[in-house]
Formats: sequence, C-alpha cells, structure tokens
Amino acid sequence: VPSARAADIAGLAGIVGAAQVLTDADLRASYEVDWTGRFRGECLAVVRPADTAEVAAVVRWCRAHKVAVVPQGGNTSLVGGAVPPAGSIVLSTRRLSSIGEVDRLAGQLTAGAGATLADVHAAVAGTGWAFGVDLGARDSCTIGGMVATNAGGIRVLRHGTMRAQVLGLEAVLADGSIVRHLSGLVKDNTGYDLPGLLTGSEGTLGIVTNVRLRLVPDPPDRVTVLAGLASVAEAVALSARLRAEVDGLDAVEAVLGDGLALVCAELGYEAPLPTMPAVTVLVEWAGRGDPPASFADALDGLETVAAADRAGRARLWRYREEMATAIARVGVPHKLDVTLPVAELAVFCADVAPLVQSVATGARTHLFGHLGDGNIHVNVTGVAPEDERVDAAVLRTVVARGGSISAEHGVGRAKAGWLSLQRSPEELRMMRALKQALDPVGILNPGCLLA
Amino acid sequence: VPSARAADIAGLAGIVGAAQVLTDADLRASYEVDWTGRFRGECLAVVRPADTAEVAAVVRWCRAHKVAVVPQGGNTSLVGGAVPPAGSIVLSTRRLSSIGEVDRLAGQLTAGAGATLADVHAAVAGTGWAFGVDLGARDSCTIGGMVATNAGGIRVLRHGTMRAQVLGLEAVLADGSIVRHLSGLVKDNTGYDLPGLLTGSEGTLGIVTNVRLRLVPDPPDRVTVLAGLASVAEAVALSARLRAEVDGLDAVEAVLGDGLALVCAELGYEAPLPTMPAVTVLVEWAGRGDPPASFADALDGLETVAAADRAGRARLWRYREEMATAIARVGVPHKLDVTLPVAELAVFCADVAPLVQSVATGARTHLFGHLGDGNIHVNVTGVAPEDERVDAAVLRTVVARGGSISAEHGVGRAKAGWLSLQRSPEELRMMRALKQALDPVGILNPGCLLA
Repeated sequence: VPSARAADIAGLAGIVGAAQVLTDADLRASYEVDWTGRFRGECLAVVRPADTAEVAAVVRWCRAHKVAVVPQGGNTSLVGGAVPPAGSIVLSTRRLSSIGEVDRLAGQLTAGAGATLADVHAAVAGTGWAFGVDLGARDSCTIGGMVATNAGGIRVLRHGTMRAQVLGLEAVLADGSIVRHLSGLVKDNTGYDLPGLLTGSEGTLGIVTNVRLRLVPDPPDRVTVLAGLASVAEAVALSARLRAEVDGLDAVEAVLGDGLALVCAELGYEAPLPTMPAVTVLVEWAGRGDPPASFADALDGLETVAAADRAGRARLWRYREEMATAIARVGVPHKLDVTLPVAELAVFCADVAPLVQSVATGARTHLFGHLGDGNIHVNVTGVAPEDERVDAAVLRTVVARGGSISAEHGVGRAKAGWLSLQRSPEELRMMRALKQALDPVGILNPGCLLA
Repeated sequence: VPSARAADIAGLAGIVGAAQVLTDADLRASYEVDWTGRFRGECLAVVRPADTAEVAAVVRWCRAHKVAVVPQGGNTSLVGGAVPPAGSIVLSTRRLSSIGEVDRLAGQLTAGAGATLADVHAAVAGTGWAFGVDLGARDSCTIGGMVATNAGGIRVLRHGTMRAQVLGLEAVLADGSIVRHLSGLVKDNTGYDLPGLLTGSEGTLGIVTNVRLRLVPDPPDRVTVLAGLASVAEAVALSARLRAEVDGLDAVEAVLGDGLALVCAELGYEAPLPTMPAVTVLVEWAGRGDPPASFADALDGLETVAAADRAGRARLWRYREEMATAIARVGVPHKLDVTLPVAELAVFCADVAPLVQSVATGARTHLFGHLGDGNIHVNVTGVAPEDERVDAAVLRTVVARGGSISAEHGVGRAKAGWLSLQRSPEELRMMRALKQALDPVGILNPGCLLA
C-alpha cells in the first residue's frame, strides 16, 4: 500500500536527514528515466547518503523492510541498468564524491563512488600521471558506476577496461556489511578477488562506495593519424600489426562504409582524404618525442592525414566521435554494442547489413567502433523502436561467431533477456549461485543483469 | 577404512583407465610432498585425467563418494597449496597439456592447464608475440597452477599478474559442471567475471582445465642496468620516476643491504660496481632500438653497469636471481613473501632486521625482491624451521603498514591460519559465502586458503 510505504520511507530520514530523501515526483523524475529515454521506472524515494556508513545503514534498513535498492551514479547507463523498478528506492551515490591526493610514488588515487570521471582526470592533471580510462560521458558518469559496469572507452587497447584500473575498493554488501580493501597493492594473493567480482556486477552484488585506482604515465606527446583502407580485413591486419610492433599505441578506431560521408554531410565537415575509403581508421600514438619508425612503416602506402597538435588531433577525432550525432540525424537508432573475435570481424561486418535488410527492408546499418578491441557499435536506423527482430538477428549472429552481445555497455535491463543467448546454462547457474550467496533476499538492483 | 576406500578408488579406473590411477606409495610419493619439502600429505590415489570431460567425471565421482580433490599442476607451490590431506585424491592436470595455435591477429593463445610455462613461451617464440609472465619455475610450473595462484614474477610491473593475462577459461566446478568461456574477447560485459574469480582461488572453487591467454608484443631489444643507490628511499623514488617517465620499462628489481656481497661471496662472482651499495637496483627496458632518453636521465649520476646483449644481461640478472641460492648456503630460511604500499617500503625495510633481532637473537635478515611492485621477499636465516615467532612478528608489522602477507605465492596451507591478520571478518565472511555457494560439500582442496 503506497501510503504505508510512504510512512515507512520517512524512517530513512533518520539515517540521511530529511533533505536527502526525495519523495516528490518532480524531484524524483530525473532519477527515474534513463539517459536514452527508453527506460522509465518509479521509485518510492531517492535517497542520497553522505558517506559509506550511511550507505550501509540505508541498505540494512531496506533489507529489514524488504525494499529493493537501485544504486545510481551519473545515470548514464545505455542499457537501463539504474532505472528503478516499482517499489524500490534509488540510492544515489553522487554525494560520495571525495577524491584523495594523488600518491605520486605509487601512481594511485582513491576516489569516492560519486566522483565523476572528469573530476578524476582533473585531480590527476599535472602530476605526471593520468587515469587510463576515458569516454564521452566523462562529465556525468561516476567512478562507482564505471566500476559497477566495467566501463571501457577509447583507451582499452592500451590500458584495459575499468577492472584493470581497480586496485582495491570499498563496498556495502546486501547485508549492510562493509568490505574494504583500499591499500592499493599491485600484488596481493590473499584470497578471492572480491574487487574484481564486484567490478562489472552492475550493482547486483554490492554497492561500490570508494575505489583505489591505478594511474598510468601521462605521455606528453601524441600523434593522431586518419587512414583510408580498402576493406575491413585490411584494417584488421593493420590493427594487429600496429599492436604487435608499435610501443605506445593508444587507440585504433574505425568508421565503416559510408559513415565518413555521413559525418561529413550531416555535420558539414570537409572530407579528410582525397577519396572516401571503404574503412576509415583512426590511430593514435602517445609517448615522449616522436613515434617509433614502426608506426610510420605500418601506415606506409596508405592515404593518410596526421596531426600532432591538440587542435589538429581534435579535428581528426571528430570524424569518429561525431558518428553517433550524425546517425541520430538520420533517425532513432537501435544501438547494439557487440564484440567479435578479431578473426571474425571482417566476415561479420560484410554480412551484417544484408542480414539486417533481410529482416527489415529499408533499414540502414551504420558500423563504427573500437577496432583494436573487436568492439563494433552496430547502429540500425529505419526500424521502429519497439521492433526487436533486428536486435535478435544481429545478436544471434554475434553469438554464432563467438562474440559478445555486450562489449562495454553491460547487460542492465535491456539485455537481461538476451543473456542466455551467449552464456551457457552452467555459467548462468554459477552466476545465480553467486547472487544467491551474496544477496539471498534479492534487494540489490533486481531485474538488472540476471532477469 | 583404507581397504574399503581402496576398493572404491578402483572405480576411478573406469573413468581414466587403470594406468592413470596411481595408488602405490612409491608412485604417489612425488605428488605428496611439496617443492620446499616442508609440507607432506598422503592421498588415496593420484588420478591423471586426459581431458576436461574426464576431469568432470572424476569430480562427480568424488562428490558422490565424498572424497576431497586436490588439483595439482607442476607441484611448485611454496605454500603447500597442492599437498593432499589424508583421505583425498590428487587430481594431476599434467596430461591436459595441449597448446593451440597462436592467433596472430588477436595476439592470443589457448593452453591446457597442464602445459608448462616454458611450453607456452616456446609455442609463442618467433610469432612476434610473447607471453607476459615469466618466473624461475618456468620449466615445471603449469598454466593451470599459475592461474589458480595468480602467479606474478619479474614482469608484473609491465604486464600485470596472471589474472591480467586470462581472457577466458574453462573450469570444472565442484558439482562436475563445466564452465567454458574461451573466445578471448577483450571486452565482454555479460555478467560476473567468472574467470577473474577462479583466478587466484587456489583450486578451492573450481579446477582450471583450459585457458585463453593474452599475448603481448615481443620487443626485439633489451637493455639491463645494475645501479647502486644509497638508500631504499632513493631506490623507491628512482622506481617511481622510471615508471612515470620511461615507456617500455620491463622490470625494477632490488637486492638490499649485504645481499650483493653475499651473492658475490657465496657464488664467486666479481663485484659489479666499484663500491658495494646500500641498495642494488636492477632495471630493464625492452622495446625497439634504443631506450628513450628519459631512461638514461633517470639513472644519471648513479654508479651503474649496463648490458644490451644476452650474455651481458644474464650476467647482471645473476646478482638478483641467485639471491635465493646464496641464502640457502647460509642456512634454511623462513621465506616471507610480502608486499608493502610503496610509500611504506623504506621504513619497513629499515625496521625489519631490528624487529627480527628483537624476536630471535642471532637471526639474519635478507631482503630482496620486485621493488617496482612493492614486493619484498623477507628471508630469515638462523631460526629453527618450526619457530614461527619471526614469521608472526614480520607479518604483523606488514599488516600494520597496510601491506599483504602474500604477494605472489598465495595462501595455500602455510598461511591459511594467518589470513585473518590481514582480511577483515567481513571480507572473510564474503569469501566463505562464495566457497559455500560453489562448493557446498567442501570437496575442492579443503584446508587450502580458507582454514
């Protein structure tokens, strides 16, 4: 009964203060709809704890009252991972935004779950160290959310995903207990890797409150090259060669087919190359001084344009980073974030547009992404938003080729129903056993990840 | 009753063949004692399955008969992790030794749990790729054991521990089910990180049978420099500077105090530097051509000796790698493999010898290890093997300074009793919940890791 629940919810004010329990519909509104606008929920309240102890007390209260808890950071999930189901509360981590000092000797930093990625980059700037993950939502997305979803982005090729940056963390479990391991030891073989398990668990096993982050050397010099290639197979071979031979390779991105022409047309950019290539590859090297000779050798014979200054590099990056904007001008896309084994990329990319056509005549397929990781963003326009036949066809062929139905966006609520396409009954049983062990009542982010 | 058990055990022959069930004491002997000779056990049989299906069948048989299973690879554990308790069987993974082809496009390889590290290095040689982990036991230790213990070694600074090399794995769980995820996708956010959880779980959550390994570029050129420093604090500062400024830094190792003199005296090596320094640091750069100027800049003003050819580099590495041999000539050491936060290293190293003296008059403390990771091997000679007062004093001060009581050797049986020194009750409860969820009967490596 809503009124009884409302009275109950008032008890949370005793933990976090009345001002931090948002129950009015207009105050809750921005927490109840996701960034894409595709997923909507309705929570009893948004609760904004100030510190880890308050998070733990809120979780204990929710467990006692059998109220589900949906942790939410910057609310930038693309798969509905932080949208509250009916009868739940949203636990906003944004007030846990403290950032510790940079440990210059160790190259490490402790950040609160609510600190944004941009805050972390700013805290590290000028210390000789950098944070190894970067992505477009940097001003909104939070460290806690990035850990919970094992975020990727444009530097995975060099520095790995978020999991590789997590040297330790503090989290509140479903029973309200706090596990804390923040000393930042690179080598520590004393039991199961709890931080690694919580990373990528999408708020279903615990609520991340603080993270000890690995930093990476901050290279002073960068060179960006945009190159035109004749086929995906050639682009894949170039990527493999660059990875094997070039120290300091930072990114290998790609825009396929008419994507480059689309960006130029929609955003009014000049064509970067004399001819429009079948595949546009953007590579970046970062280090001290000049790139090694192997960098130029690998690109020899291709049509290229290069830049080493900030403005020139930004001009080249636009052709890749504005793809999503250009596509949005064509129509509302179905966004499918998938990975293929590198050896399968060329065939997959050749087959996917005809496959989409066979399911939805008149649909248009746009392909771009993180070539070096095998991560392709398949965007399809010209299909009704609720029509999932295209999604089904594409995800099934991804799985048939040994790929992943979610490269970096996670499972959330959007893909929970598709998980059994890719994961075996044995794997799913193991995941459910872990969930049952750590959250037997099922109060942490129900409906997310495991449907 | 042993005879009843012996009759039971014969049933295993139906799974793996009679020749692969070793019950004679002389055939079992080498599987029942660990590499150090400190730990001894007695198993009902050594069972040697040929493939994953046989491993699963053996585990199901053991579960049905309530017989504990101790997985064992190369039997090189330094903490008694593979020593069988009474009434158990040893499941040897050595026959699972197949190695797949190098995927040159992806830079990946699939190896069976029983393949040795040396086998993997050999399979990769000449492909332009390398395997990122190396350690002294390379001819005996197996990939499965290295995954199970999250092995470290001399390249962790650059490539991370074993966990960072595992892109996917196949394992048999305690219920005999097989979880398999070997497609080697760098980005795959579809549920909990099962490979990461199994890595470092020391055979207590599942038995690793196959592993998809990340490879790293194989740099053609290397430069090794041995440098003398005046203090640990200076060595730590040098390590931090090298890490921040030198692309291609591969190793930063150290021998402290009179360790260098000891190696020279015991093994008859010439002193490498004009004077015996307080701290001997060994650094290695690997890449193409010459190291960057920042490498020489960081070492400027120090007494150094350098080598770029294989023989010359091997001569320099001896001063670090033969430390264990030199110490063994002084006496049987207590070996304590610990990590300190980098900022605590200097004070810890200054305090540890006096601390040992205060507990055991006449004891001698030897310090060396992986400086860049904060990983120090504390070796103490002149103390009776069974006297654990020194161990207790050193491990307690490590924990008080935020360090780890096991950097890279794992917990095994040797340190299971010490785990609560470092891990909080909440962390241990979480670990036990995971163990209970995945192995409710407790048949997988009982007594290892969680006492």
